Amino acid sequence: MTITPPALSVFETLESEVRSYCRGWPAVFDRAQGARLTDEDGHSYLDFFAGAGSLNYGHNNPVLKRALIDYIERDGITHGLDMATTAKRAFLETFQNVILRPRDLPYKVMFPGPTGTNAVESALKLARKVKGRESVVSFTNAFHGMSLGSLAVTGNAFKRAGAGIPLVHGTPMPFDNYFDGTVPDFLWFERLLEDQGSGLNKPAAVIVETVQGEGGINVARPEWLRALKELCERQDMLLIVDDIQMGCGRTGGFFSFEEAGIVPDIVTLSKSISGYGLPMSLCLFKPELDIWEPGEHNGTFRGNNPAFVTAAAALQAYWADGQMEKQTLARGEQIEQTLLAVCAEEPTASFRGRGLVWGMEFEDPARASAVCARAFELGLLLETSGPQSEVVKLLPPLTITPEELDEGLRTLARSVRETA
Amino acid sequence: MTITPPALSVFETLESEVRSYCRGWPAVFDRAQGARLTDEDGHSYLDFFAGAGSLNYGHNNPVLKRALIDYIERDGITHGLDMATTAKRAFLETFQNVILRPRDLPYKVMFPGPTGTNAVESALKLARKVKGRESVVSFTNAFHGMSLGSLAVTGNAFKRAGAGIPLVHGTPMPFDNYFDGTVPDFLWFERLLEDQGSGLNKPAAVIVETVQGEGGINVARPEWLRALKELCERQDMLLIVDDIQMGCGRTGGFFSFEEAGIVPDIVTLSKSISGYGLPMSLCLFKPELDIWEPGEHNGTFRGNNPAFVTAAAALQAYWADGQMEKQTLARGEQIEQTLLAVCAEEPTASFRGRGLVWGMEFEDPARASAVCARAFELGLLLETSGPQSEVVKLLPPLTITPEELDEGLRTLARSVRETA
Amino acid sequence: MTITPPALSVFETLESEVRSYCRGWPAVFDRAQGARLTDEDGHSYLDFFAGAGSLNYGHNNPVLKRALIDYIERDGITHGLDMATTAKRAFLETFQNVILRPRDLPYKVMFPGPTGTNAVESALKLARKVKGRESVVSFTNAFHGMSLGSLAVTGNAFKRAGAGIPLVHGTPMPFDNYFDGTVPDFLWFERLLEDQGSGLNKPAAVIVETVQGEGGINVARPEWLRALKELCERQDMLLIVDDIQMGCGRTGGFFSFEEAGIVPDIVTLSKSISGYGLPMSLCLFKPELDIWEPGEHNGTFRGNNPAFVTAAAALQAYWADGQMEKQTLARGEQIEQTLLAVCAEEPTASFRGRGLVWGMEFEDPARASAVCARAFELGLLLETSGPQSEVVKLLPPLTITPEELDEGLRTLARSVRETA
Amino acid sequence: MTITPPALSVFETLESEVRSYCRGWPAVFDRAQGARLTDEDGHSYLDFFAGAGSLNYGHNNPVLKRALIDYIERDGITHGLDMATTAKRAFLETFQNVILRPRDLPYKVMFPGPTGTNAVESALKLARKVKGRESVVSFTNAFHGMSLGSLAVTGNAFKRAGAGIPLVHGTPMPFDNYFDGTVPDFLWFERLLEDQGSGLNKPAAVIVETVQGEGGINVARPEWLRALKELCERQDMLLIVDDIQMGCGRTGGFFSFEEAGIVPDIVTLSKSISGYGLPMSLCLFKPELDIWEPGEHNGTFRGNNPAFVTAAAALQAYWADGQMEKQTLARGEQIEQTLLAVCAEEPTASFRGRGLVWGMEFEDPARASAVCARAFELGLLLETSGPQSEVVKLLPPLTITPEELDEGLRTLARSVRETA
Repeated sequence: MTITPPALSVFETLESEVRSYCRGWPAVFDRAQGARLTDEDGHSYLDFFAGAGSLNYGHNNPVLKRALIDYIERDGITHGLDMATTAKRAFLETFQNVILRPRDLPYKVMFPGPTGTNAVESALKLARKVKGRESVVSFTNAFHGMSLGSLAVTGNAFKRAGAGIPLVHGTPMPFDNYFDGTVPDFLWFERLLEDQGSGLNKPAAVIVETVQGEGGINVARPEWLRALKELCERQDMLLIVDDIQMGCGRTGGFFSFEEAGIVPDIVTLSKSISGYGLPMSLCLFKPELDIWEPGEHNGTFRGNNPAFVTAAAALQAYWADGQMEKQTLARGEQIEQTLLAVCAEEPTASFRGRGLVWGMEFEDPARASAVCARAFELGLLLETSGPQSEVVKLLPPLTITPEELDEGLRTLARSVRETA
Repeated sequence: MTITPPALSVFETLESEVRSYCRGWPAVFDRAQGARLTDEDGHSYLDFFAGAGSLNYGHNNPVLKRALIDYIERDGITHGLDMATTAKRAFLETFQNVILRPRDLPYKVMFPGPTGTNAVESALKLARKVKGRESVVSFTNAFHGMSLGSLAVTGNAFKRAGAGIPLVHGTPMPFDNYFDGTVPDFLWFERLLEDQGSGLNKPAAVIVETVQGEGGINVARPEWLRALKELCERQDMLLIVDDIQMGCGRTGGFFSFEEAGIVPDIVTLSKSISGYGLPMSLCLFKPELDIWEPGEHNGTFRGNNPAFVTAAAALQAYWADGQMEKQTLARGEQIEQTLLAVCAEEPTASFRGRGLVWGMEFEDPARASAVCARAFELGLLLETSGPQSEVVKLLPPLTITPEELDEGLRTLARSVRETA
Repeated sequence: MTITPPALSVFETLESEVRSYCRGWPAVFDRAQGARLTDEDGHSYLDFFAGAGSLNYGHNNPVLKRALIDYIERDGITHGLDMATTAKRAFLETFQNVILRPRDLPYKVMFPGPTGTNAVESALKLARKVKGRESVVSFTNAFHGMSLGSLAVTGNAFKRAGAGIPLVHGTPMPFDNYFDGTVPDFLWFERLLEDQGSGLNKPAAVIVETVQGEGGINVARPEWLRALKELCERQDMLLIVDDIQMGCGRTGGFFSFEEAGIVPDIVTLSKSISGYGLPMSLCLFKPELDIWEPGEHNGTFRGNNPAFVTAAAALQAYWADGQMEKQTLARGEQIEQTLLAVCAEEPTASFRGRGLVWGMEFEDPARASAVCARAFELGLLLETSGPQSEVVKLLPPLTITPEELDEGLRTLARSVRETA
Repeated sequence: MTITPPALSVFETLESEVRSYCRGWPAVFDRAQGARLTDEDGHSYLDFFAGAGSLNYGHNNPVLKRALIDYIERDGITHGLDMATTAKRAFLETFQNVILRPRDLPYKVMFPGPTGTNAVESALKLARKVKGRESVVSFTNAFHGMSLGSLAVTGNAFKRAGAGIPLVHGTPMPFDNYFDGTVPDFLWFERLLEDQGSGLNKPAAVIVETVQGEGGINVARPEWLRALKELCERQDMLLIVDDIQMGCGRTGGFFSFEEAGIVPDIVTLSKSISGYGLPMSLCLFKPELDIWEPGEHNGTFRGNNPAFVTAAAALQAYWADGQMEKQTLARGEQIEQTLLAVCAEEPTASFRGRGLVWGMEFEDPARASAVCARAFELGLLLETSGPQSEVVKLLPPLTITPEELDEGLRTLARSVRETA
């Protein structure tokens, strides 16, 4: 397949230089269905990025699409601020019945605005309000968002520099396996907390991703997460799990922390929660933390009702039983087998992952970009992650078929070979 | 009409205490069209709030609805990150042709994420990056959003307290008419800037709303805005106009600053830019400020393509000629006449406004809430604003008919009378 | 008199570029007595600067010198940390009997370290601790010191820039007469405090100088100070008077705020408190504010016992009766008469002052420096102050004789004439 | 010996609750000579605290006393701001000839104010100004002072809480041996610096004590200091050695970092630099860092000329040859032998130290206080240090005789035994 660079003129002349994905994927996309996108010239692309985890059920999933069009056709409320609506009620009841109750999770639900960073900002605000302390601990290579509160707990130096002000009130700690197992977990963190002379401002909360997506597909072990939860309890800190990219089934269970058997104090969800790629996010927390005053946090688009409709439909379609989780784990194994084989042939590469999120790291960061570029030429959308963009990130829709997955993995293998 | 309190149970038991509008409007809304909403019991409400300015073209506007359904039906890209898409190109071209070129505005366009606070955060980041200074001046009673960057330039003490950290790097200055004309404009601000001993950290930028919506419908005079622009030029500060609530025609022209004849350095748009109430926002800036590195600011939902579709449709339908502006000013006059009469009868009330945004202030703040509560009983959605919620805010859709407007104004007048 | 530039070599080669007074006064001083210094070449200088207010009783005052030498001879404790010593007890008892009791001032006394900035840092810490708020209001052209806490409430942009970090948690308000009487006192400040939407972080305290020495000899009227005290009470803010330069009799009474009849919540003293130019400072506060834990603030040199000895001797010698205050006011009148005459001849100059602190402002800032330079040639030490160094500052020892004062004033008048 | 509690009334009624040493040593001290103090009742105390390291040459050292009295008698300049004086020149020349030149140290000398915290504040300002970054790395259990800049890099949680504002711009790293040698030096620090995703704000500088006095007599190994210096060079950070307590010969050499063979970029000195316990401090830095503008940092008492006189006398008397260093190391060995014996008998105690600074740590922190209390009853001044006051600190004057040292060590041993 040959890709002719499309006419990008208005993007180049009018859109800001800040644009980025469109640079690596120089096509003008037009339509999409399931795991495939089509550009305006009719070229088809298999999607191993899934909207950075926002399209777990594929592009324009027909079940959700039907519900969405029906809702729009009948003039259901579109923009609802935080008014009570029938769509919001249906979502809340479904979320309670399908997700919270079966998992025995006691959370209250907050609609903090439609994007992940809104959810993180609200989580941080609440934790600080509850504990009366301003400091929050995050982890090396964490990514939590681009507004100032979220950016202060994000690791990437390039993105942090964009703040234009010193980012303070956050302290990084080593993520799981940061020293390849040579240092006991939490040695440094716990010592700082216990030593009254350490100079660490006592944190209100710890914010963590169970798998760091932007940070390079760094997978925390369940025992590490459990030890973190225990540390938080011992030290009177709240545990916030940012499940924006890894939640909604990406790692198997609906929440990525289920496998570890922990119940975080606060959880953020976004990306795939609406199921259809529509902006929506949630902040969940234990009822005793719900000390918000009415309106203390607000936002114009926190009632994006079409998203509530597709979200409820997605929960009913995919989470009423355990099928989705099983399928995700099976697909994950399919990826693992292929990566084993690919890395066996390519000694400068290694891989890791969980569920349907996998990373393939190259010793030479430029190689990861080369692999993605070659994959794009071959019709596969792949992105890098990690502090030096040294990791090729596999994030296909959960609903991908084994055949599509196989096709994409073969293209990946070929891209690795052809960039050697 | 009698309103029976609806069954709100799941909202009360599951949703966080932070919910607010649903408390003043205890109904479960189901459908909406134009200026009217219907609750699940079939009661109809006339909407003088318009999604806090997000529904300038009314609920579920049929022209936009058609375009939206067509797009969804044909599986147009829904979630596009910042990839080039045909929908995005159509929006950019329309925005350029219908809005920017006719007004001779040179702006580059950035998609900073789908909500207003994303746009404000990106504007503040850019201004700080360009000028290499961290301080920003905002105005008394400003409202710019709830994430930490935006909240630091927001005036409301209750919302600021929610931050849980000291909000710094922002300094408030008096908005137009803060001292009822007794003090020359910018006396304090300019003196601080010119006095090397003043203690004011030199600001990178000034952020301003031309009409403060949340702050109590405080209207800046065109000459004040012009003087502010000149002050910014003299003192090497960027001028950011936050046009999230007042842009998209709310005050007459597409941008609220057109009347003053100024060209801000940076402009934020959101709320009604998608036209249909879908989350979308823009940050516009002069090309010489476009020093962003690719990906230096990003966000999952900054490519909400269905919003691009309705946005382009709205621009074509309403802004290809000057009709909308004329109509808005005419409707505004209709409001003004009524408020003149209402305030003549009610000596503790005064009013102010511009275009289709008006405020009626009561000496007793409780009265404003009482008026809104009575209006709700009578089937009219009205909200308060101002630091003590002392202002009844009139924000009907721009597409409201004269008859609907008259009906709502009569209900308002009755509510004022009946709460005397 | 002709001054030959002295051999400054080791100062120029070894001492940092940060040195400053030695640049304007290129002599190597050797001895001093009363109002006169002598350089190593035997040239004599009349001192109208008095160690920036640290030598109110003149250089090497014989009464204090005797007490100091006696104390050193008998091996009295020199360095005492915050141990109880006989010298400290003598000072505390004298301070209580001679200063606090006759003025009915209820203060507790803290030794925060030996310099003014230590006292200011401790005052700010205590105010924040008592009120549980981090923000402090200072005034335009304030000077409170060079460590980070004090610098954040200091106005001078050049000195602030030296911090290397953004200085936050402080907000400047207009000092008395900042707008030449055209704006009511505290119009802006009080409005910000009362408006819940103003964006001002509620301050823990207000810190003020009654006469701004470094800021350009700006004199606050007693009624302004009283109104400020009342505002602080109404708004639950502590009033800190920084009396480091203006206290110890500089304006007439021992404390500069006595004339206004107010009792600040916290007072800082330093400079002339030891009387002999030895490092010493005090932080005074109302007993109900004394919520310090033992050792919560400390410092190696807060027990500089030789300074306690000279301090007690100075209080006994000069403050046991009202003579010093009367004399200071009389000398001040002598200055005022001369400045009246000088300014009558020089229309680009104006003057202001109180007690024995006076400023002569020139329209052309360079002129003020020229006057000081010429005065130095003529054997008179004079310094400039103000944000542009536009004010010649007169700060002679309080113990200066009328003849010396007259001599200096004649030299000043000549310097003004000869730089015209 | 029996100590009757002295009449402390004025200290209790008038002095702030913040006082601390006077609580542990309830005597009113009157005179002192060498290693001995005498209280007003004639009781004599042997001093193993030496003004927290400010009295390395003993109390009221006769050589310095002679120079001081001569200077005062002849009316030498007392208070000199930063004017050139003969006393300052003599000090600068002596410092250059006796200290800097023989050690081949290229430093410029700054007089930042008379106390240690002034020196630290100036060092941090300069480092930030030179590097254009705001962040500074300090170490666990560091102590650098009580003004806000210094406090932000100090570890003690109790003292930090006194700030009343969040202390930011500083990040703690593990001091040498923080994990008992189980973790490679700088593993965590270097990894954070090299990982672009770590979230660490790139530091302008690292500030370190070679032996942490307040932190519990934690001794950094020379190889750790060398590795730190190399890390700073590799990572473009300035190395600041805070030698306020450990400099002036406390560890043997004049500077405590000499043994490690490193040349820090910036050095702070205070405490014993004047030799006589008079307030004085220095900030030393490499000439290429001297980018200060004249007056950018200032302070009233940075020209404490009597301190210059005693400082020059001390350097000439004790540092013209290597005798002092040899003697200190010999005395240190005397302490080490005793502590070995004491700890052999007391299994819950351990010890460490260098030169003439030693610490004896007890498993039960209360024991350390009990030892000091018993020692006081027996006429020996001893203080605790460490985050839980668990370390008895030995800090005798360097000029102590072997007999006095032996006497004090025997009292210590007895106090340990009697508190078992």
